[in-house]
Amino acid sequence: MSEVRNTPITVAMLGCGTVGGQVARLLHEQADDLTARIGRPIRLTGIAVRRPHRHPEIDPELLTTDAEALVDSGVDLIVEVIGGIEPARSLLLRALKSGTSVVTANKALLAEHGPELHAAADSSGADLYFEAAVAGAIPLLRPLRESLAGDRISRVMGIVNGTTNYVLSAMDASGSGYAETLDEAGRLGYAEADPTADVDGFDAAAKAAILASSAFHTRVRAEDVHREGISGLSAADVAAAQLLGRTVKLLAICERVVDQSGAESVSVRVHPAMIPRAHPLASVGGAFNAVFVEAEAAGQLMFYGQGAGGAQTASAVLGDVVAVARNRVAGGYGPRESAYARLPVRPMGETPTRYHVSLDVADRTGVLSQVALVFAEHDVSIAIVRQEGRSDEASLVLVTHTASDAALRSTVDKLAGLPAVREVVSVMRVEGEEA
Amino acid sequence: MSEVRNTPITVAMLGCGTVGGQVARLLHEQADDLTARIGRPIRLTGIAVRRPHRHPEIDPELLTTDAEALVDSGVDLIVEVIGGIEPARSLLLRALKSGTSVVTANKALLAEHGPELHAAADSSGADLYFEAAVAGAIPLLRPLRESLAGDRISRVMGIVNGTTNYVLSAMDASGSGYAETLDEAGRLGYAEADPTADVDGFDAAAKAAILASSAFHTRVRAEDVHREGISGLSAADVAAAQLLGRTVKLLAICERVVDQSGAESVSVRVHPAMIPRAHPLASVGGAFNAVFVEAEAAGQLMFYGQGAGGAQTASAVLGDVVAVARNRVAGGYGPRESAYARLPVRPMGETPTRYHVSLDVADRTGVLSQVALVFAEHDVSIAIVRQEGRSDEASLVLVTHTASDAALRSTVDKLAGLPAVREVVSVMRVEGEEA
Repeated sequence: MSEVRNTPITVAMLGCGTVGGQVARLLHEQADDLTARIGRPIRLTGIAVRRPHRHPEIDPELLTTDAEALVDSGVDLIVEVIGGIEPARSLLLRALKSGTSVVTANKALLAEHGPELHAAADSSGADLYFEAAVAGAIPLLRPLRESLAGDRISRVMGIVNGTTNYVLSAMDASGSGYAETLDEAGRLGYAEADPTADVDGFDAAAKAAILASSAFHTRVRAEDVHREGISGLSAADVAAAQLLGRTVKLLAICERVVDQSGAESVSVRVHPAMIPRAHPLASVGGAFNAVFVEAEAAGQLMFYGQGAGGAQTASAVLGDVVAVARNRVAGGYGPRESAYARLPVRPMGETPTRYHVSLDVADRTGVLSQVALVFAEHDVSIAIVRQEGRSDEASLVLVTHTASDAALRSTVDKLAGLPAVREVVSVMRVEGEEA
Repeated sequence: MSEVRNTPITVAMLGCGTVGGQVARLLHEQADDLTARIGRPIRLTGIAVRRPHRHPEIDPELLTTDAEALVDSGVDLIVEVIGGIEPARSLLLRALKSGTSVVTANKALLAEHGPELHAAADSSGADLYFEAAVAGAIPLLRPLRESLAGDRISRVMGIVNGTTNYVLSAMDASGSGYAETLDEAGRLGYAEADPTADVDGFDAAAKAAILASSAFHTRVRAEDVHREGISGLSAADVAAAQLLGRTVKLLAICERVVDQSGAESVSVRVHPAMIPRAHPLASVGGAFNAVFVEAEAAGQLMFYGQGAGGAQTASAVLGDVVAVARNRVAGGYGPRESAYARLPVRPMGETPTRYHVSLDVADRTGVLSQVALVFAEHDVSIAIVRQEGRSDEASLVLVTHTASDAALRSTVDKLAGLPAVREVVSVMRVEGEEA
């Protein structure tokens, strides 16, 4: 071996929590394999942490509290597993601008400040890899950006939050309500003490922004994503889905929308939706993640696996570390990420969706025609109607064809005000089937 | 734009059948997007075919019958979609040795002559990409080689042949026998006129060799793969699986095996097996493909999609074309493929497997103990026994724990010779559950 081939690729890590600890372990345990796969050894030169005494398992020589000095130390790449916006943002911008490549698992940072980070990487040519930011160990961004680079992606639809999927799977299995199921998920360790980021859809929205950016070559930020969480869901919603052979999932949906004039835009949204039980996403249970992709030539694809966990996320981080290291060995940086398409993000109100509406109505002549008239007035076409009487009350279930979300929402608002409608039992979007 | 940025990446194609026609179409239709994604335009400079008059849809200026001259024409990359061994092998070796990168969908060639092709690529540094060779449009080789490059893959198990999966799904649904189901598949276009390559497992074995090579950084060739097809399967086998809540699939299995001394080897095999109905692969129906991957840190992953079809395979080819083109724009070739591990391939007889055995036995005292003794004599431990009498005959179903395949086979041979055993109704391996 020549001297160059023995010169290590140097790596510094920012943060050493659940994921960072696993990255350090794997770098050590897999050292021989990584060297063989890369062509040169990898050396971890330092880890920036706030409280070094909390990391007794790490060689103290590696630990530092001076993250800036570590970023400036001239390493080949920085692994960022601090999470959150600051100081991660400033440290990564500093690294990228100086030509130091970055591997990060930080979905919030990418979803809020992706354009700034990509611009910094472009300015120096440094690599910016972030496979671990979406769906943990599931290879997803690399397939979207590379494997499907010659195809035209029309839709990415996935279950990308394990906590909410656990809660919804449990509600579907037990018939229990939302609050008690979330409590149980917390007791079992499937939900954080403060589950807001999960149940209100912030986590899924950040991932949707990253997925849409990669799929559609367009910069989409978290604030562009229409977001609804699961905290408003009731046992009645889940039961209503079951009655129609469907199940409720919190979906991140990124779609290419072509309007009548041929103009293209992207719709990026996170909301609960009913999907048919036969849909590949329906059987994704518990804390698993899965993402369904539709492309013009490739057809339907699905990627499935564990979306969270220290070791799982570390696997994705290490894959990126090897990629950056191989680029260094091959002589520089990898191909650039492109955002040439610059498609506008479509407002939710103008996005075509389908609704399921379940109503309790008075069981008397003319009610169905009153209800149907409200749909017709909003130009919303009805696909399925099921009416079932019980004494003087009837249950009326309607599923629409595709219409603008705003028209569907107005329809529901108007229905709620009809004297014959006693209660709007459940309103939910329908996905995963032909309109 | 500078002159360099407008200089096209030149592509020549060998063959223009179902896949090639779609590649040509997509290169044309997606030209603007491809240019933006790559940073330079792509130009198709020629297509070598045997009979130019059979391609009226292609610009005649592009067509040539002189494949060698096209290979020597100085293009940036060659797309090979001829299939088969010769002349593809000679043409690709010629291209790679001269530094021309290659994208191929040719699984038979890679599985039989992979080492030779990789050596030629290594000698010049040229890129050799072949995502389309396994599981059509499903991104699989790139995730194995890149996304999981920092992890340790323990198993790759998949449904990689659509024809046999269609036949097995139909047998499972209808209870029909093999021959009539294959006939029907042929009538519906799911099986070729000569289905040998599919039903005898040759196609799946070639894919298994390619998957094992990528997953374990070891060159595995088609001839190293233990291969059993589905033509010996009966309705009784499928019914026996159903009785235990299982279903029968033709699986390609690539496993890392560590023996008691700690020595590592790989087992690569294609055979029918029973898997639990709850296993993610069990619900993969019809002509779909899916591959299940287990890695130490990433845990369980699954990749699902359409494994065949012109457009689907072309999508994978185009993804590789973009990758090679981006490498050219970035200044050369991509990182090298590594086969450093050089793990030995374990003979099937020494591979740990589990068997399901269904017997018709005489219903008299002592039969179960005779049968159990045969297992014990071969050091095979029994996990499940179910006996059910009907008049003077009984049905006896046994599922073993893990043992060497040779010990299991000897056990079955010995059982078949026991006077009390009237018929061996079904023998099949069991996969996808803890032993």
